[in-house]
Amino acid sequence: MFSKVLVANRGEIAVRIIRSLKELGIKSVAIYSTEDRESLHVQLADQAVCVGSAKPKDSYLHMKNILATAVLTGAQAIHPGFGFLSENSRFVELCEACGLVFIGPRHETIELMGNKANARIQMQKNNIPVIPGSTGFLADANEAKKVAQKVGYPVLLKAAAGGGGKGIRRVNNENELENAFNEARHEALISFGDERMYLEKIMENVKHIEVQIFRDDAGNTVYFPERDCSLQRNKQKMIEESPCAVITADQRKYLGELAVKAANAIDYRNTGTIEFLMDQDHKFYFMEMNTRIQVEHTVTEMATGVDLVKAQVRVASGEDLPFKQKDIKLLGTAIECRINAEDPAKNFAPSVGKVDYLYFPVGNLGMRIDSDLYAGVKISPYYDSMIAKVIVLGENRHEAIEKLKRLLEEMVISGIKTNQNFYLTILEDQKFLEGTFTTDYLERVLLPKWKKERSNETI
Amino acid sequence: MFSKVLVANRGEIAVRIIRSLKELGIKSVAIYSTEDRESLHVQLADQAVCVGSAKPKDSYLHMKNILATAVLTGAQAIHPGFGFLSENSRFVELCEACGLVFIGPRHETIELMGNKANARIQMQKNNIPVIPGSTGFLADANEAKKVAQKVGYPVLLKAAAGGGGKGIRRVNNENELENAFNEARHEALISFGDERMYLEKIMENVKHIEVQIFRDDAGNTVYFPERDCSLQRNKQKMIEESPCAVITADQRKYLGELAVKAANAIDYRNTGTIEFLMDQDHKFYFMEMNTRIQVEHTVTEMATGVDLVKAQVRVASGEDLPFKQKDIKLLGTAIECRINAEDPAKNFAPSVGKVDYLYFPVGNLGMRIDSDLYAGVKISPYYDSMIAKVIVLGENRHEAIEKLKRLLEEMVISGIKTNQNFYLTILEDQKFLEGTFTTDYLERVLLPKWKKERSNETI
Repeated sequence: MFSKVLVANRGEIAVRIIRSLKELGIKSVAIYSTEDRESLHVQLADQAVCVGSAKPKDSYLHMKNILATAVLTGAQAIHPGFGFLSENSRFVELCEACGLVFIGPRHETIELMGNKANARIQMQKNNIPVIPGSTGFLADANEAKKVAQKVGYPVLLKAAAGGGGKGIRRVNNENELENAFNEARHEALISFGDERMYLEKIMENVKHIEVQIFRDDAGNTVYFPERDCSLQRNKQKMIEESPCAVITADQRKYLGELAVKAANAIDYRNTGTIEFLMDQDHKFYFMEMNTRIQVEHTVTEMATGVDLVKAQVRVASGEDLPFKQKDIKLLGTAIECRINAEDPAKNFAPSVGKVDYLYFPVGNLGMRIDSDLYAGVKISPYYDSMIAKVIVLGENRHEAIEKLKRLLEEMVISGIKTNQNFYLTILEDQKFLEGTFTTDYLERVLLPKWKKERSNETI
Repeated sequence: MFSKVLVANRGEIAVRIIRSLKELGIKSVAIYSTEDRESLHVQLADQAVCVGSAKPKDSYLHMKNILATAVLTGAQAIHPGFGFLSENSRFVELCEACGLVFIGPRHETIELMGNKANARIQMQKNNIPVIPGSTGFLADANEAKKVAQKVGYPVLLKAAAGGGGKGIRRVNNENELENAFNEARHEALISFGDERMYLEKIMENVKHIEVQIFRDDAGNTVYFPERDCSLQRNKQKMIEESPCAVITADQRKYLGELAVKAANAIDYRNTGTIEFLMDQDHKFYFMEMNTRIQVEHTVTEMATGVDLVKAQVRVASGEDLPFKQKDIKLLGTAIECRINAEDPAKNFAPSVGKVDYLYFPVGNLGMRIDSDLYAGVKISPYYDSMIAKVIVLGENRHEAIEKLKRLLEEMVISGIKTNQNFYLTILEDQKFLEGTFTTDYLERVLLPKWKKERSNETI
């Protein structure tokens, strides 16, 4: 087992990782930007090293400084958290070159799954159902047309090397296709130097369902019960829960085994999550794989009682998985809300400033708040606005929802604006209570509903 | 199910009960003294009524005011918490007379088990092993001498109607016995108007092991895995854990079934705890029964995932027990520390004042802090000094201890003195780690050890 690990991240995830390292008896090294010198992760780590100035590229993305810090502090491994360098295969290669263990998958896997077109091809090869669309790359607009006709409009044209919204076009009908194809291919060429394109049907009335898997060097693979992450705003998940309210035990097993098959096919190592769309007939379609610990891993931890970060560290150090499939049991239903420093009344614009009062209502069973907040901390404009994850575990979904409501009603974060109260609108919505919501539901129904309630309150 | 319940208590237990009521969708009525007008339980309840001035006898023990409040607010039931009126059989009778459900056992049971001599006799009748000593009451000093000779010195002479240390004498040898007996009997007569006496052997090298049971009106009885509450200072429990580190699964079952037999014998209703002494041969001896929810019920909740207060409310409302024996499973090891507002450096004298900064480190799995603290609250000299219970659940005892250490190191309660750091001395002690400590260990070894460490630090 490692004796010292560097945590290449900030915010609540850095705090969360440092805490698990402490409990494992492993010394932690925090890195921080000049902006973060008073951050909680800096205070909690055994050592903390400033790696640059406020902008992420100068600090949390600055590979050379981070690697030098790891080497000079004698860390044996790096935990990347999520975001920043967590899915950067070059960084993983450099870790290896410096004799450091990267706590995550091999760099080849990160690269393979990072290219969404290749990931899709890989899954098709292994008989994992993917979103209807092209097989491999599209030769030209004509082929695109044929595929689109077969799967049905609307479709999405996507650059194989895509990212950040470049080289991507929604096509509603055949008339739009040729132009869109040529535009997107051109954009892809100039953006990524790679003009390869593929196509996927735009699926409607679907849920975002994902399965976290864990695999060790000996090839033991375990899946965790699915998470329903369908409630999203601006493609950002807002509420996650496990298990999904409308998936049966048989479907859970089928889906879990599908995810295990996918993980085995790519010789995966450590933990990762396979994201699926689920249609109204409860058919699943591979969307993409995240080769890192995710924000919402905490839902699974609460639902099953397994500390996934500790397992990551153990597996990365060469140990076998500390659990078998039969050990993974649902303890109830877990639900998480992401609390962001943002103002829902101003279209969720980021809110910065000093948290002048803080009350975390953490008593009673089944409550967890992962956060880097403390009374007096300043919220910086430079980083992601997520400041806390509140997670509850109930005996059943009804109890979990009641717990979450209570928690959100009691929690006080003052001095900045947050989306805390917006969740109360969601938690009382009938379709939310039924669990039948799909990925468009939050923006299409809940957001307008909340705006209306809010304006009534104002009157 | 009730729609409104009055919580006849204050502090963390009132907060804890109100939170469970909220999650059950039941309105809560808090009572408070003038001293407690800004207390958290007052803020969290749906309604709050001042029932008198600061001294307990004028407010939290003032039966008439409390009952009137319950009737006038339309509460259907009263939850007494622990302490105050929770084991007052007269109060329970008055509740019934007012048409209010007392959330706890019947008044006859409270009375029976409240008289420690009768409780002992009752257990002997039902073949529950009791601490060696007299059977029934002692006729005179001669009989006391015979019994003492049989069980061996030292022994404790106790008034049947005893309480508050009156009518109780330790006797080390036969020469001391006659005088002690006459003195104690006289004291009992003038204190309680009841001169009946009994005798118990003073057992040394024992653990305090207790079993919580739950029983519904239909006679379903369930036991929970034992708690080890051996670490005590001044007869007050400081650390509680479940399960006990040195008790086997077979012993757990034997002890649990013994407790169930005892509960059935007295037709018990709702939850209660049977306290045993365990000797070096792992033989158990009935000590007494607590006919209320206890401070340390939270350890059992964390260890098993069962909300005991919710179950109390359900059973009191006439529902069957919401779990069966086979549903009660250990999720790992839970440990609790009681955080008191007191100064260990001044022989644990109470500390009062304003909490000016508060940080509860509640992230990651298996952490719970039940407390009525918030930043800015004033600690009153009128009430019990316990201000928080920190409880952890680990996969095993080692992990639980590591979690507890981390939590105690990170937690900040400033403005008053607390016993928080004293626990770190305990958590690193070898005998604590082994789990082999007995009831005298804290005062005999840990306290002097801590004092020595502290004086070394000062130098």
